Amino acid sequence: MDSLALAATASTPDGNPARRRILDFATERAHRLGVDGITIGTLAADLGMSKSGLFAHFGSKVALQAAIVSHATDEFLRKVAEPALSQPRGRSRLNTLLDAWLRYAEQPGGCFFLGACAELDGRSGAIRDQVGEFAEWWLGVLQEEIEAAVSQGELAPDVSPPELAFELHAFVMQANAGFQMFGDPAWLAHARKAIARRLNGVLPPAATVE
Amino acid sequence: MDSLALAATASTPDGNPARRRILDFATERAHRLGVDGITIGTLAADLGMSKSGLFAHFGSKVALQAAIVSHATDEFLRKVAEPALSQPRGRSRLNTLLDAWLRYAEQPGGCFFLGACAELDGRSGAIRDQVGEFAEWWLGVLQEEIEAAVSQGELAPDVSPPELAFELHAFVMQANAGFQMFGDPAWLAHARKAIARRLNGVLPPAATVE
Repeated sequence: MDSLALAATASTPDGNPARRRILDFATERAHRLGVDGITIGTLAADLGMSKSGLFAHFGSKVALQAAIVSHATDEFLRKVAEPALSQPRGRSRLNTLLDAWLRYAEQPGGCFFLGACAELDGRSGAIRDQVGEFAEWWLGVLQEEIEAAVSQGELAPDVSPPELAFELHAFVMQANAGFQMFGDPAWLAHARKAIARRLNGVLPPAATVE
Repeated sequence: MDSLALAATASTPDGNPARRRILDFATERAHRLGVDGITIGTLAADLGMSKSGLFAHFGSKVALQAAIVSHATDEFLRKVAEPALSQPRGRSRLNTLLDAWLRYAEQPGGCFFLGACAELDGRSGAIRDQVGEFAEWWLGVLQEEIEAAVSQGELAPDVSPPELAFELHAFVMQANAGFQMFGDPAWLAHARKAIARRLNGVLPPAATVE
């Protein structure tokens, strides 16, 4: 399965320019203050719009938050998934995904979804579920590329894809968290080194390379 | 330096039982809803207290939030630091710390500080700084024990303590995040395996073991 290509094809950025401008602004705020920090009232005030004008675009706080998460998903697909789609599946695509994800994490506010998962994991409701589904999809994408790399002989046959995906995901999550908290690019460098070391440690035995 | 022992000695749990009961409740809420989700007004309502009664204990929202972070620090020291203090420094203490931290992350709400860092890293102010200082101290503790392990010949001499601390910290952070989001203990098992694999990969060359 190619979950990455499927998601990229299914992605439909919002066609309404006014709505898109609102969502750009709201997503940036949600990045910094949390998805649950966004309400129609505060957002209308910050945008200098009337509450009823904003309400007409979204209809409810939950619909607004859901639109923010979808908007962030489109951004993630554009910045992290798309650069990797032109790469052959397996190790090349895996490396490109991790590299693009780290560059995304380096932007102001860091990775939207790592922040949103940490914010919402203790809650319940539609927005938490939407963010959880994204997290599951993304971990699945990394795992699929590891599986492809193993079956193509680019990684050792005894690699456990779920365990390796866990570790690689952990390095980016840690880099994102440390860089957002302390602002020191050493956090990103640590992740790049950790990823390279881990992947170099599971090269296939020379004899099995064709 | 023994930052772990220093912090454990400096820890002074709140002596006022009424205040402590309030803080137990408030810390549990902050765990679930975020530190910034706690205000004197909502907390008073949830505790069935008057706002002025609660105000008399803390004086301001920021003072209440600061008391919550201190309360969570005491909990962390009790649950994660103390079990390790009886261990010899170096590899034994490092393993005990990571194990106790994973058990703490397994509790409802997970690790308070991993959640608080993710929540507050995009903000500014005293509470963010307090949480950031804790995170820096804790990463320093892990790094010190790695340094001790290297200098005692329990880990290979070419180990980079900041890089290894980054990776071990990442595994627990990822386990905490995944377990809180999906509730599957496989996340904790992945971290335990990743930690063991990583540490077994940097044993000292047999010749240097005395």
